[in-house]
Amino acid sequence: MESKNKSFTLAYLAEQVNGKIDGDGSIQINAASPIEKANAGDITFIANPKYLKHLETTKASAIVLDLETPSGGISSIRHNNPYYAFACIIDILYPELPEVKPGIDESSVVADDVTVGDNTAIGPLCHIKSGSSIGDNNRILSSVFVGSNVSIGDNCLIYPGVMIMDDSIIGSNVIIHASTVIGSDGFGFAESDQGLKKIKQIGNVVIEDNVEIGSNCSIDRGALGSTKIGFGTKIDNLVQIAHNVQIGRHCIIVAQVGISGSTRLGNGVILAGQVGVVGHIELGDGVKVGAQSGIAKSIEAGKAMFGSPAREILQSKKIEAALNRLPELLKRVKKLEDKK
Amino acid sequence: MESKNKSFTLAYLAEQVNGKIDGDGSIQINAASPIEKANAGDITFIANPKYLKHLETTKASAIVLDLETPSGGISSIRHNNPYYAFACIIDILYPELPEVKPGIDESSVVADDVTVGDNTAIGPLCHIKSGSSIGDNNRILSSVFVGSNVSIGDNCLIYPGVMIMDDSIIGSNVIIHASTVIGSDGFGFAESDQGLKKIKQIGNVVIEDNVEIGSNCSIDRGALGSTKIGFGTKIDNLVQIAHNVQIGRHCIIVAQVGISGSTRLGNGVILAGQVGVVGHIELGDGVKVGAQSGIAKSIEAGKAMFGSPAREILQSKKIEAALNRLPELLKRVKKLEDKK
Amino acid sequence: MESKNKSFTLAYLAEQVNGKIDGDGSIQINAASPIEKANAGDITFIANPKYLKHLETTKASAIVLDLETPSGGISSIRHNNPYYAFACIIDILYPELPEVKPGIDESSVVADDVTVGDNTAIGPLCHIKSGSSIGDNNRILSSVFVGSNVSIGDNCLIYPGVMIMDDSIIGSNVIIHASTVIGSDGFGFAESDQGLKKIKQIGNVVIEDNVEIGSNCSIDRGALGSTKIGFGTKIDNLVQIAHNVQIGRHCIIVAQVGISGSTRLGNGVILAGQVGVVGHIELGDGVKVGAQSGIAKSIEAGKAMFGSPAREILQSKKIEAALNRLPELLKRVKKLEDKK
Repeated sequence: MESKNKSFTLAYLAEQVNGKIDGDGSIQINAASPIEKANAGDITFIANPKYLKHLETTKASAIVLDLETPSGGISSIRHNNPYYAFACIIDILYPELPEVKPGIDESSVVADDVTVGDNTAIGPLCHIKSGSSIGDNNRILSSVFVGSNVSIGDNCLIYPGVMIMDDSIIGSNVIIHASTVIGSDGFGFAESDQGLKKIKQIGNVVIEDNVEIGSNCSIDRGALGSTKIGFGTKIDNLVQIAHNVQIGRHCIIVAQVGISGSTRLGNGVILAGQVGVVGHIELGDGVKVGAQSGIAKSIEAGKAMFGSPAREILQSKKIEAALNRLPELLKRVKKLEDKK
Repeated sequence: MESKNKSFTLAYLAEQVNGKIDGDGSIQINAASPIEKANAGDITFIANPKYLKHLETTKASAIVLDLETPSGGISSIRHNNPYYAFACIIDILYPELPEVKPGIDESSVVADDVTVGDNTAIGPLCHIKSGSSIGDNNRILSSVFVGSNVSIGDNCLIYPGVMIMDDSIIGSNVIIHASTVIGSDGFGFAESDQGLKKIKQIGNVVIEDNVEIGSNCSIDRGALGSTKIGFGTKIDNLVQIAHNVQIGRHCIIVAQVGISGSTRLGNGVILAGQVGVVGHIELGDGVKVGAQSGIAKSIEAGKAMFGSPAREILQSKKIEAALNRLPELLKRVKKLEDKK
Repeated sequence: MESKNKSFTLAYLAEQVNGKIDGDGSIQINAASPIEKANAGDITFIANPKYLKHLETTKASAIVLDLETPSGGISSIRHNNPYYAFACIIDILYPELPEVKPGIDESSVVADDVTVGDNTAIGPLCHIKSGSSIGDNNRILSSVFVGSNVSIGDNCLIYPGVMIMDDSIIGSNVIIHASTVIGSDGFGFAESDQGLKKIKQIGNVVIEDNVEIGSNCSIDRGALGSTKIGFGTKIDNLVQIAHNVQIGRHCIIVAQVGISGSTRLGNGVILAGQVGVVGHIELGDGVKVGAQSGIAKSIEAGKAMFGSPAREILQSKKIEAALNRLPELLKRVKKLEDKK
């Protein structure tokens, strides 16, 4: 994305984020770049301590740093939460929204009784069904499907190809990335003599304010009642949320996680990539689960888990270390036995 | 989904499902709800023994139960397969289909030679290519793509954004959820001096009657010949089925499973969430595989497997239990050695 | 896919691929089929040694074989790279491209300033935004979204439902399968007092020539800078590539793999199905990782890894074998202790 060339002094940017100048505040900044590719006029950031080495060679004009790290002579904005400060600076340097005109594109098919709020744009080739209401300042991009009786709040950004099934309720400030499906049927079947009988899924999906959901995710509707994603929760790509899952506030669900039916997550739960969680259990507030772990039992608040099946992380690490010695251990025990 | 307010006596519902009334059969029922959220007029169900505690406090007017569980004084329908009975009752209470008008929406692009059966609806913004035939009573919702020479039987429900590639053959009573892809190319390349040479994938996908496939799945076409999904098999969301996989009848494939090329599943196979299966092997009838397991070898009929790599489930559980004692075992062996 | 009945002598096909006839070169061939389903007129291939048994019963008229395997009396084309030779023969027997007419379908919405090269087809119901340029001989099938300022080279095949976000740069001879998303936002948030603050993702995706990407994949744009997929790399279905990942040339990424942010893969890296790789690490040239493995640390060039967490494959196999004896080992140690 090209910066539109508007430039700001480093001092101005520091002031906007309540940061402190360390160096020359009069430097002009007009772009943000990765540290190893930055040029004059760019501000940069160190996303991971591994990249500290680039401080010596970067051509960036400025950097956002924490309060201690030596700047290597580059003018910097000091901040106790440099990642947050950098995020705010990007917002200043790149203010553009995707350019969408308010109104309904003429190629879209929108039922007569759909209510659309002020300043909302519905892009080309969308289909919005009867009984739905869409609030103000939404950007619904191309080829989006919105089923019957859906409610969408204000200031949402719905990317192309998102499919929102009937009866979904979506709050405000929600972002949903391309090709994600909200409200597909849960996976419920009863055994019978004639094979598997479908349990009609008559619930819906409720997404609270400030949620972001990645691309190609599947969020199933409740079988009865609702599947719920709580305020401020962020979900990465290719995530599976089964029917009647209840996710609390401010959770972080990384790519390719799968959560089975009716499981409840508290607030601030973090599930790393490819984690699987069985159904009908509870993960307490602040639970953290390492990548690829499998959770088969409820977990108390605050615990950190790892492994498939998961154990508390310290126990898991001890076992992993011990496993390296297991082949040799077999030999040692054999030797002890032979000595008898 | 709102019940359309039609109500039925509990006795009527019991009769429809061949259940037995335990309590007051004259109670009026007009909705189905989760046990902890039910109100007067609702019938409910216990999906998991964990929820038995709600029997004491539920406001539901009635419940579907097995023959033994005490009802806690709530009027109930007794049935030896209560889950099945409840599924049938939901069908009675919520008879509505998604409202789709038969005919082809004028915003869709349908080739002249496509044959469309009686009472079939093709919703807005679909594209159906030449040589395809679509039977009776199908509901093809919005933004569906149907390639060339595709055949679709009767009574299918194809959700928005489904992409059905050329030459696919889909039976009757098939449900495919949003954004699933049927017939993408298999992943086949030959090494050569110029890098990887694509093996053109000239096969197709065959889906038998009564199959249901979740959202965001990828079912690849055969390289040569067909990828096949057998009668009555149910597939959850985000599942990967590679080229030339052969899946039997009445299998259950849970979310995020991946099955590699040319592998064959018998009938009634159950793969839990996130299972991976290598290519060119066979899983016999009734094989069950636990969540996140990895199957690298053929499995005999009837076996239950767990782990990555998978072992028979009892052996797997023994090893998991033993692992908890491994760090301490290292110390114990060291102590034995020191005693020498 | 029906062969269009054009037939070739076996001798002609052998000559085209620089193979040697073993048997009757005058046989007429008009189709390619799996060995167990082949009929007269078909040429076939042995994809896996397990299928050698079918040599005795196949009805195929001819087979492509390596230089040594006995042909069982079937006329064959001998080649030192039979898989490659067979791929080339399929290209001869099945030359058809999906039939797409050059030009822009009238149902598509294309911004006035989009440049479209010679002989490029843009199918029905696509949306292409301002500032994008599309080269020659591309086939962009139905319901494809191309955002602003996207560049697409020549000879690409973009399947239905692909969503290409703003600023993506796509080379030539690229194939992207249905419902894949190129350039969705990376998953980046800074903690703050008000919850998680989105880091606006201002980078893009760069896909080099000859790349193929499967269906339902998510390739995130860079946070700053680019996510890059190198020349000739092949990616299977349902794969997650996070922001700023750098993938080298000729890599093979099998279905359901997830690669976390800023990780770098060298050339010729092979990741089997469902592998997970953490962020900010490097996998050297030629690294091979077995299915379902989890990679948490950088790996030197040429190494083969397996397990979650991954170890070098020989060590991993030793541990797996030893695990089978662990429950019994506990008893043996107990017995040794009891003898004291």
